[in-house]
Amino acid sequence: MPIMAVPNLEAVAADLFARLGEIGADGVGITRETFGPGEGAAFDLLEAVAREHGLLTARDAAANLSVTLPDTPEALAPTVARPCVIVASHLDSVPQGGNFDGAAGVVAGFLSLLRMQAAGVRPARPPRLMAIRGEESAWFGKAYLGSSALFGKLAPEDLALKHRSGGHTLAEAMAGAGADLARIGQGQRLLDPAAVAAYFELHIEQGPVLVARSLPTAIVTGIRGNVRHARVVCRGEAGHSGAVPRWLRRDAVFAMAELISRLDEHWRVLQEQGLDLVVTFGIVGTNPAEHAISRIPGEAAFSFEVRSQSRDTLEAFYHLMRTECRALERTRKVEFVFDRRLDSAPARMDDGLVKRLLALSRRLGLPEETVPSGAGHDAALFANEGVPSAMIFIRNDKGSHNPEERMDMADFLAGADLLHEGLMEAIGAEGTA
Amino acid sequence: MPIMAVPNLEAVAADLFARLGEIGADGVGITRETFGPGEGAAFDLLEAVAREHGLLTARDAAANLSVTLPDTPEALAPTVARPCVIVASHLDSVPQGGNFDGAAGVVAGFLSLLRMQAAGVRPARPPRLMAIRGEESAWFGKAYLGSSALFGKLAPEDLALKHRSGGHTLAEAMAGAGADLARIGQGQRLLDPAAVAAYFELHIEQGPVLVARSLPTAIVTGIRGNVRHARVVCRGEAGHSGAVPRWLRRDAVFAMAELISRLDEHWRVLQEQGLDLVVTFGIVGTNPAEHAISRIPGEAAFSFEVRSQSRDTLEAFYHLMRTECRALERTRKVEFVFDRRLDSAPARMDDGLVKRLLALSRRLGLPEETVPSGAGHDAALFANEGVPSAMIFIRNDKGSHNPEERMDMADFLAGADLLHEGLMEAIGAEGTA
Repeated sequence: MPIMAVPNLEAVAADLFARLGEIGADGVGITRETFGPGEGAAFDLLEAVAREHGLLTARDAAANLSVTLPDTPEALAPTVARPCVIVASHLDSVPQGGNFDGAAGVVAGFLSLLRMQAAGVRPARPPRLMAIRGEESAWFGKAYLGSSALFGKLAPEDLALKHRSGGHTLAEAMAGAGADLARIGQGQRLLDPAAVAAYFELHIEQGPVLVARSLPTAIVTGIRGNVRHARVVCRGEAGHSGAVPRWLRRDAVFAMAELISRLDEHWRVLQEQGLDLVVTFGIVGTNPAEHAISRIPGEAAFSFEVRSQSRDTLEAFYHLMRTECRALERTRKVEFVFDRRLDSAPARMDDGLVKRLLALSRRLGLPEETVPSGAGHDAALFANEGVPSAMIFIRNDKGSHNPEERMDMADFLAGADLLHEGLMEAIGAEGTA
Repeated sequence: MPIMAVPNLEAVAADLFARLGEIGADGVGITRETFGPGEGAAFDLLEAVAREHGLLTARDAAANLSVTLPDTPEALAPTVARPCVIVASHLDSVPQGGNFDGAAGVVAGFLSLLRMQAAGVRPARPPRLMAIRGEESAWFGKAYLGSSALFGKLAPEDLALKHRSGGHTLAEAMAGAGADLARIGQGQRLLDPAAVAAYFELHIEQGPVLVARSLPTAIVTGIRGNVRHARVVCRGEAGHSGAVPRWLRRDAVFAMAELISRLDEHWRVLQEQGLDLVVTFGIVGTNPAEHAISRIPGEAAFSFEVRSQSRDTLEAFYHLMRTECRALERTRKVEFVFDRRLDSAPARMDDGLVKRLLALSRRLGLPEETVPSGAGHDAALFANEGVPSAMIFIRNDKGSHNPEERMDMADFLAGADLLHEGLMEAIGAEGTA
C-alpha cells in the first residue's frame, strides 16, 4: 500500500459532522431514526465518503455498515483467519437529540482509518470500523438493536416491538433497511466474538462529569446496565371530578404520582447508602382520548427505567418497584399492567485496554482519568460476549439526548488521536509498506 | 289554546335520547363537541322536533336555543313585559362521555312544554326551555360558555381560548355556530336577569351518592365552585437518564409527582378537618415530541382543578398549591409556568324553590332529600346573577363524563314529573283555556 498524504483530518471531520447534521435536522435538534430514513441516509453518507477515500465497505445481515483498509478485505468477513480490531459507534439519535451522540465515535474511527491508510500500515489484526444500527431505545423501546442482532440476540418478542408511533414493528423497519430477517429471526450469529481481538468505542460523555472536572477525555471503566418497561399502565376508574367523593375515587394520576414519589425517595435513601443507582420516568401521561380537566383520570401510563453498574442493585430496585405497585393497588384501588421487562446487562471494560489507554493518554498529554459510564453503549454487548472492550469519553457540555449537546472540536480531535494510538497498538501495526 | 291529547311522553323521551345518542356516537361513548358539529346537530334536532310539535323556537346571539308555547312568544324576547320561567340544560358532552349528561334536563323540560301545551295552560309567567351552549370545560378549558355569554361575561381572553386540539379559538367556534361575536365581544347582556322569575334545571347526578342512598331523585342545595388552570407547565432540563447524577437533575416528572402527592396529602388532611374540597389533575403528561425512556423529562404539563362550596376554601387551597410550587422550584430546580386562572363561583340554590320542590316530592311519593352538587352547572351562573334557581338530580349509576353513565328511564320520568309540577307552580298556570 503506498504512503499517501494524510488528509486534513479536522476538515474531514467538520464536513462529516455538517453533512450528518443536515441529514438529521428536525427544526429543533437532530432526529436520525433507528432503522428509519435518517439513520439510513447517515449510513449511505459514510459508505459513499469511505469509498471516495478508497476504503472497502460492506453491510451485514443486520444492515450494519463495516469499513476497512483496501488491503484488509478479510476484516469484513464474519469469521476471519486473523482476529480483527473493531472500532465502532452508532449513527441513530433520539428524537430532537444532538449531532454528536454516536456519530462522534464513527467519525473518529473513520479518521483513524484514513491515517492508517495514509501511513500504509500492515496490521497483524486488521481494523474494522463499524457503524452499528439502532443503539437508541427511543424508537422501539429497546436499545443495542444492531449489536444484539450481530450476536444473534434479538428474540421474536424484540422483533415484534412496535415503533413509538404505534405503527410498524422492528422487524418491518429492519427489513426496510435491508436486514436479512430470516437469519436474524433464527438468532444466527453474524459475528464470532472469538474473531474480534478488541473493541474500541469513542463517545461523548452523556453527563456533566468531565465538564465539572475540566477533563477533555477520560477512559471508561464500566457501563451501567438497566431494567426497563417501555409502558406501564395504571388503571383506575374515570368519573366526574366534582362528584365522586375522595373515598370512592380510583384516581390513576394520584396513584402514579405516589408511586413515582415513593421510588424517588427510595432512590435517595439507597444512593446515600452508597449504591450505584439511577431511576427515570421519561414518559408519563394520561390518555389523550379521555382528556378533560373535570374528569377523574381513569388511566395513566409511564415508562420505567433503573440503571446500575450492579446486577444485584438492578434486581433489588426492580423488586421494590413491583412491591410498591402492589401496595398502591390495595390502597388506591387501581391496577398496574406491565409490558415486557427489558434488560441490558452491566459490563466491565477490559483492564488491560484501560491501562494501555491511560498510558497513551499520559504520552499525549491527556488526563489519566477514569469514569464509569452511566449511559449504555454497544461496547457493553461486545464486553459481555467476551470481547476485550474499551471506551474513550469526550467532554460534552449540556448532556446528550437533547439539542443543547455541545462538543468542542479540539476535545474531539484529542480524543480521536488517543483512539488512533490505541487502535494502532491493538492492530499490531508492523510499520509502513 | 285548545286542549290536545298528551303525547306518549316516555316514547318522545326515548326517541329523543336515541337520536341524540346516534348524533354523538364515537365508537366508545358519546362526543358532542362544544360549539362543534355534535352540539350543533343536537340543537338542530331539538329545534326540528319542537317545531313538529307546534312549539316556537329562537336562537339568541350566543347561539343558545329557546323554545316556548305557541301562545307565549314573548318568552323568547330578551326583555319581556312579564318575567319568564326558564327550564334549561346543555347538549354538549365531554369526549367519550355519556348520553344523558345535560340532555336529560333538556328532554325533561321539553316533555313539560308538551304537557303544558296539551293542557292549554295560560301562564302568568311564560315558560322558556333553553338548550344552553358549551357547558363542558373539556373543549376550551372553560365551562358555562353559553350562559356566560348570555350575561355578557365572556372576556376577550375567554374568546381567545384555544380548542383542546390547539387549533381554532372559542371565538371562531362560536362564530361557526352562528353566534354574534360583535355583541358577545362587547360583553352585551343577551338576557336581563330581572326578566327571569325562576330558573330550573334537571340533571343526572354526576356522583354515586343517590345510588348509594337508593334515592331516585333529590333536590340540590348548592353548587360547588372551582378554580382551574387548563395547563401548568413544569420546566426542568432534559438530559441522558443514565449520565446526569441525582444532585444535578432537574427532572420535571419527579417535581410534578411530588407536587401532586403533596396536594393529595393536603386534601386528605383538610377534608378530615371538615372542609368541602375536591382536587383533580385530570390531564398530565410529558412532551410527546421529546419522548424517550432514556431521557430525563425536561418538561411535564398538567391541568389543575380545585372544587368547593366555599369561596374561602377555594382560595386557601389555591394559595397552598402556589406555595408548594414555589417550594419545589427551589428544591427541584424547576420552574412552574401557569396559564390563566379560571374561576367558577360557588352558588346557593333558592331556599323557597328548594322547599317547594321538597313539598312536591312528598306529594309525588319521591324522596324529600337534598344533596349538594359537586359538579358545576349553568344554574350556578343564573343563581349568581340573582335569579332564584333550583336543580333536581336524577339517580345515575357509574358517574358521568364516561361512557358507562347509566340512568334508569323510570327515575328520569319521575324526575321529569317533579320538574313539571315545579314549573307549573312557577309559571302560575291559571288553568286551561
